[in-house]
Amino acid sequence: MRTYPDCVPCGIRHALESVRMITDDERIHEGVLRETLRRACSMDLRQSPPATAQIIHRFIREVTNVKDPYLAVKDRYNKFALEIYPDLKQKIESSANPLETAVRLAVAGNIIDFGVNSVVEQGDVEQTITRSLTEPLDMGAFAAFEKAIEAATDILYLGDNAGEIVFDRMLIEQLPPEKVTFVVKGSPILNDALMEDARMVGMTDVVEVVDNGSDAPGTILESCSDEFRRRFDRADLIVAKGQGNFETLDDVDKNVFFMLRPKCKVLAEHLGCEIGELILRQSAAGTCRLGAKVERFKNFQDGTGKAVKQ
Amino acid sequence: MRTYPDCVPCGIRHALESVRMITDDERIHEGVLRETLRRACSMDLRQSPPATAQIIHRFIREVTNVKDPYLAVKDRYNKFALEIYPDLKQKIESSANPLETAVRLAVAGNIIDFGVNSVVEQGDVEQTITRSLTEPLDMGAFAAFEKAIEAATDILYLGDNAGEIVFDRMLIEQLPPEKVTFVVKGSPILNDALMEDARMVGMTDVVEVVDNGSDAPGTILESCSDEFRRRFDRADLIVAKGQGNFETLDDVDKNVFFMLRPKCKVLAEHLGCEIGELILRQSAAGTCRLGAKVERFKNFQDGTGKAVKQ
Repeated sequence: MRTYPDCVPCGIRHALESVRMITDDERIHEGVLRETLRRACSMDLRQSPPATAQIIHRFIREVTNVKDPYLAVKDRYNKFALEIYPDLKQKIESSANPLETAVRLAVAGNIIDFGVNSVVEQGDVEQTITRSLTEPLDMGAFAAFEKAIEAATDILYLGDNAGEIVFDRMLIEQLPPEKVTFVVKGSPILNDALMEDARMVGMTDVVEVVDNGSDAPGTILESCSDEFRRRFDRADLIVAKGQGNFETLDDVDKNVFFMLRPKCKVLAEHLGCEIGELILRQSAAGTCRLGAKVERFKNFQDGTGKAVKQ
Repeated sequence: MRTYPDCVPCGIRHALESVRMITDDERIHEGVLRETLRRACSMDLRQSPPATAQIIHRFIREVTNVKDPYLAVKDRYNKFALEIYPDLKQKIESSANPLETAVRLAVAGNIIDFGVNSVVEQGDVEQTITRSLTEPLDMGAFAAFEKAIEAATDILYLGDNAGEIVFDRMLIEQLPPEKVTFVVKGSPILNDALMEDARMVGMTDVVEVVDNGSDAPGTILESCSDEFRRRFDRADLIVAKGQGNFETLDDVDKNVFFMLRPKCKVLAEHLGCEIGELILRQSAAGTCRLGAKVERFKNFQDGTGKAVKQ
């Protein structure tokens, strides 16, 4: 997804909020503000918002000399999610369609995101979880997801945030473990899950976990390791969690199921939905492979080129 | 008031919203975005937010070739305020303290401001008016204002927005007309009142009206005409309406009564109040002249240098 003009002031605000989490030094705040403006001046709006965020957050880590500013936050959300894990696991197992319930909860878990709104309260998470069990979900996309899981031999599950990773584990526990590889980021970026989070929440006991070698808040393939890119090419199904992964992979030529709750107006408009909706959406390329070539052709005809709502 | 870091992303967002009101051409939106970023890169944060806004809105008018983008909006709000004028006038005249009621309404009228939030609904205005009659008002400041009106010989009332100017008229009708001069902006800036608005709402029939020769959304004295500056120097009491006038005059060495509803977190924090509160506040210089030298000295001692809440 390209960077929309509204992403620019939002990104600047977010850079300020991020640096304030690390230091009270107003000279550093101003330094980060000026560097963000300098970068924004010459930015290529055809790039995705995470491409700029990656550069800004590198600068913030460098100028504050704090390697992993969200370490304590990640730890707190992992612990919180682990506490509620047994109850939610029970909800999944006793539900009429455990895979559907697990998908709902995995999408709900995407509320734990400091990439867009910097403040997430535990109460919000609990409310979101409860609501997600009954909220509308695109059941056409879910049926396609079920089929795709069955047909796939090599599923790459791109994680998003710490805390949320526990919700990913619950969904992955409903999938054939031998098919799935879970992906974490290569090094700290915001509250995105790293290998230590995967270990902490027991993901490494469930499936293979690899890191993508990148510090982008999404999956910018050019920024990932060669090894990860080969892994990505080989996979026949991608599950991509969160706004950052959507923004960086929405036009990739792979069969991708995006799971997220859009957290800003720009993305909600791009997706044609409301902020906070449960989104399960297949990539245009995936829809096409599954026989919806006519739909895709129609999209190109009307110039949107976007995935069709199932 | 200096420009706080948070004013920068807010200003950029606002520039985008403003240009979108004028044209749907996305190339122009991007042009305004880039110009705003370029200006922001080199901005002096010691200057007030209206100083940057003045430059950006000049650029917007130039690039869109629309001299007065808010003309229709101003017209609509003048008409709306004139419609409710007789009722409100009646409320003032029948109230226990007409001057207090008129001050409350004049502050309430400051909700009609497109400088911070671009969308103001008529319903919001009506609700605000009703609430303003019973909301807390700093009665110490009001008592000082009453005394200052009595003592003054030359009152300069700095207007803010169209629509709001009808509320200013209601307050001015409670003051000795021979003492008061009302001030409008010299040329179009946002929805700020101009001479034609003063004529349209009958302000010119009540008191002398002059323009300040400037297109800043506030009162940046260096940007005003020599004639206006002389007028400003001569006045022994200033009434300054709205956020822009506060931001540009809060440290001026004059006896100023600021009347506004702060519309953003930054200003509310600067003032030590909540967003949307009715604010009537005397300048530090004014407080000092009226014998509160000790208070002011205390302010300088604790390093705030701000006006004391009465």
